[in-house]
Amino acid sequence: MDERLQRTAEASKSAGCDWAILTNFDSICYALGHVPPIETAISPFAGGPTTAFVRADGACGLVAPNVESAAAQASRADETIIYEGYAYDHRVDHVGNYAAAIAEMKARLGVGGVLGAEPETFPAALAAGLGAEQTVDITEPLRRARATKTAEEKALMRRSAMAAAKGQEAFYAFARPGRTELDVFAQIRAAMENFAGERVAVAGDFLSGKTRTATGVGWPISRMINRDDPLISDLAPRVSGYWGDSCASSVVGEARDDYLKLFNSAKRALCRALEIMRPGILAADLDAELRRLVAADGYSYPHHSGHSIGASVHEWPRLTPYERVPLQEGMFIMVEPAAYDSDVGGVRLEWMIEITPSGCRPAAPFEHHASISA
Amino acid sequence: MDERLQRTAEASKSAGCDWAILTNFDSICYALGHVPPIETAISPFAGGPTTAFVRADGACGLVAPNVESAAAQASRADETIIYEGYAYDHRVDHVGNYAAAIAEMKARLGVGGVLGAEPETFPAALAAGLGAEQTVDITEPLRRARATKTAEEKALMRRSAMAAAKGQEAFYAFARPGRTELDVFAQIRAAMENFAGERVAVAGDFLSGKTRTATGVGWPISRMINRDDPLISDLAPRVSGYWGDSCASSVVGEARDDYLKLFNSAKRALCRALEIMRPGILAADLDAELRRLVAADGYSYPHHSGHSIGASVHEWPRLTPYERVPLQEGMFIMVEPAAYDSDVGGVRLEWMIEITPSGCRPAAPFEHHASISA
Repeated sequence: MDERLQRTAEASKSAGCDWAILTNFDSICYALGHVPPIETAISPFAGGPTTAFVRADGACGLVAPNVESAAAQASRADETIIYEGYAYDHRVDHVGNYAAAIAEMKARLGVGGVLGAEPETFPAALAAGLGAEQTVDITEPLRRARATKTAEEKALMRRSAMAAAKGQEAFYAFARPGRTELDVFAQIRAAMENFAGERVAVAGDFLSGKTRTATGVGWPISRMINRDDPLISDLAPRVSGYWGDSCASSVVGEARDDYLKLFNSAKRALCRALEIMRPGILAADLDAELRRLVAADGYSYPHHSGHSIGASVHEWPRLTPYERVPLQEGMFIMVEPAAYDSDVGGVRLEWMIEITPSGCRPAAPFEHHASISA
Repeated sequence: MDERLQRTAEASKSAGCDWAILTNFDSICYALGHVPPIETAISPFAGGPTTAFVRADGACGLVAPNVESAAAQASRADETIIYEGYAYDHRVDHVGNYAAAIAEMKARLGVGGVLGAEPETFPAALAAGLGAEQTVDITEPLRRARATKTAEEKALMRRSAMAAAKGQEAFYAFARPGRTELDVFAQIRAAMENFAGERVAVAGDFLSGKTRTATGVGWPISRMINRDDPLISDLAPRVSGYWGDSCASSVVGEARDDYLKLFNSAKRALCRALEIMRPGILAADLDAELRRLVAADGYSYPHHSGHSIGASVHEWPRLTPYERVPLQEGMFIMVEPAAYDSDVGGVRLEWMIEITPSGCRPAAPFEHHASISA
């Protein structure tokens, strides 16, 4: 049994459930390895969310619409029911077909007893179909089960981190005055997608200019990049169901002293993280140390210092002032200290860092350059 | 009142509902103009789906997480509640905050009586929060209300069609032997995104080579394009919440006679559609006529002949053998006849066609070229 399935089953059991009923795309990917594309939202031909069933002993099933059938056939589910959502030669009741598939899976696997669910996406129709008047919220135990990565996941995380690093190489290679943010972002995406061999969903931020980088947040627009603009390239590609993440910041042209002060502040904090991250350090203490260093230079950042990552782009734990949980071997933690100044712009530097038995190492390091030659 | 809101309210009322509770992203966009990005799936910081409330008289509200707040503030909702999903300096109960926001909106607007819902995405938690033991499925009346476009939508549809046309120009300009499908697709995307001024979700297909184009379906991969390969470029960009769509097919190099036979078959069918589409013609009769023409050349296609389009990439009605509904002025219909031959490859040619009072016209025509010089 894949260890992720086993961990899902155990987490659900620990919450007192006989079954976990999964409807969040990331937990389905985690438990069963079902990885449909997500970039175009729920298909108009789906009658409900793709749904996974995991029994306390690891027996499992998957219900998916025919538009996801290629992905579904590649999953680790014991039982798969593909229902008709799309057809062209006859009328299809996709909602009714989803309900019928749920009923069939319920009968086939003997789904019953106490059901665990993910309230963000658990549909009323599914509750009705399973006769579940009440469900147990298993979000929290599932999160904790996923915090350290299995051997299979470690390889996937390094590959996703490498995809992000390829994107950052393309960032340095293509960011030039006279190109738009979207032009550069297209080249970055092509580099990541060619590495992955397929289209990938991309989260993150891409920003140019003083005003935009000082906010630190936003998707690329058609703004033309000018000489001496600060840039932020925060790239989070989803490869084979697992997210990479990364952030580079650079000036196209010449980095002035006031920009270098921002850059060096964020870089010092990131380097410090690499020195002190090891099993046992509390997420909150790491967060505090990074904020302290940046504050010593006169800066602050209005966001977390980092976050775990995996089948979801933000996982538990995050590096925040309140998260007094020790880091553990096998965690993959994004670390992203930053410095923002409305008169100069913003700098955020981020690596994926893997916690080893005695310390840590970057999962796929790339250089952080303060400037790119125009 | 925006006509889309009015149509939503009337459709819901016609189904016997006092309120429409909307959780599908496209119907929320339609009713209220709330257009968050969709490319990275539901945010890990959302406690439930973004939710719209529309009363039979058009009073309306929107509940969205703070990560969607910029989009939400730009919507047409009378009342907007942004709940906390993301924070870094304190722990957040995003599921509890969504529930509290729903309860507050219920109280503020006086939500009650018969509730219409979209079963694909209507969560059990929302049903519980509204005290809705039963809801009415309003998917079908909403679909019908959206089939003809309002004046505002016509402008948006032409712009989305133009974005697709810009993508096809980039396809002809960049498809060359030695580039990967993903390389070409990146340039196409950049052209569409620069036109839109922002990132856009893209559905569709991008295929090269005999085997891949003969199936007609699939996202681009890292396959290298070879001289004399057939290509299919089916581009559906979502711009400002409205989808464009289009398909071009071409050989990079020299189109041989067997390919030209496929190409001319699809082209003749598309031209015929432009001759006969007008208010009153049945979708099924149009479908039959296009299939008849292609069949006369010895071909067929295992998909619909086309589909309506708008805030969803596939809307009602579709051009299928069973849809005996007359086309009407103000519909925007994708027409996509095709010819596939496993020995030669596939050709699909698609335009967005607007139904006018007396006939039809392409919303944003682009040329269909049988070959691209290598």
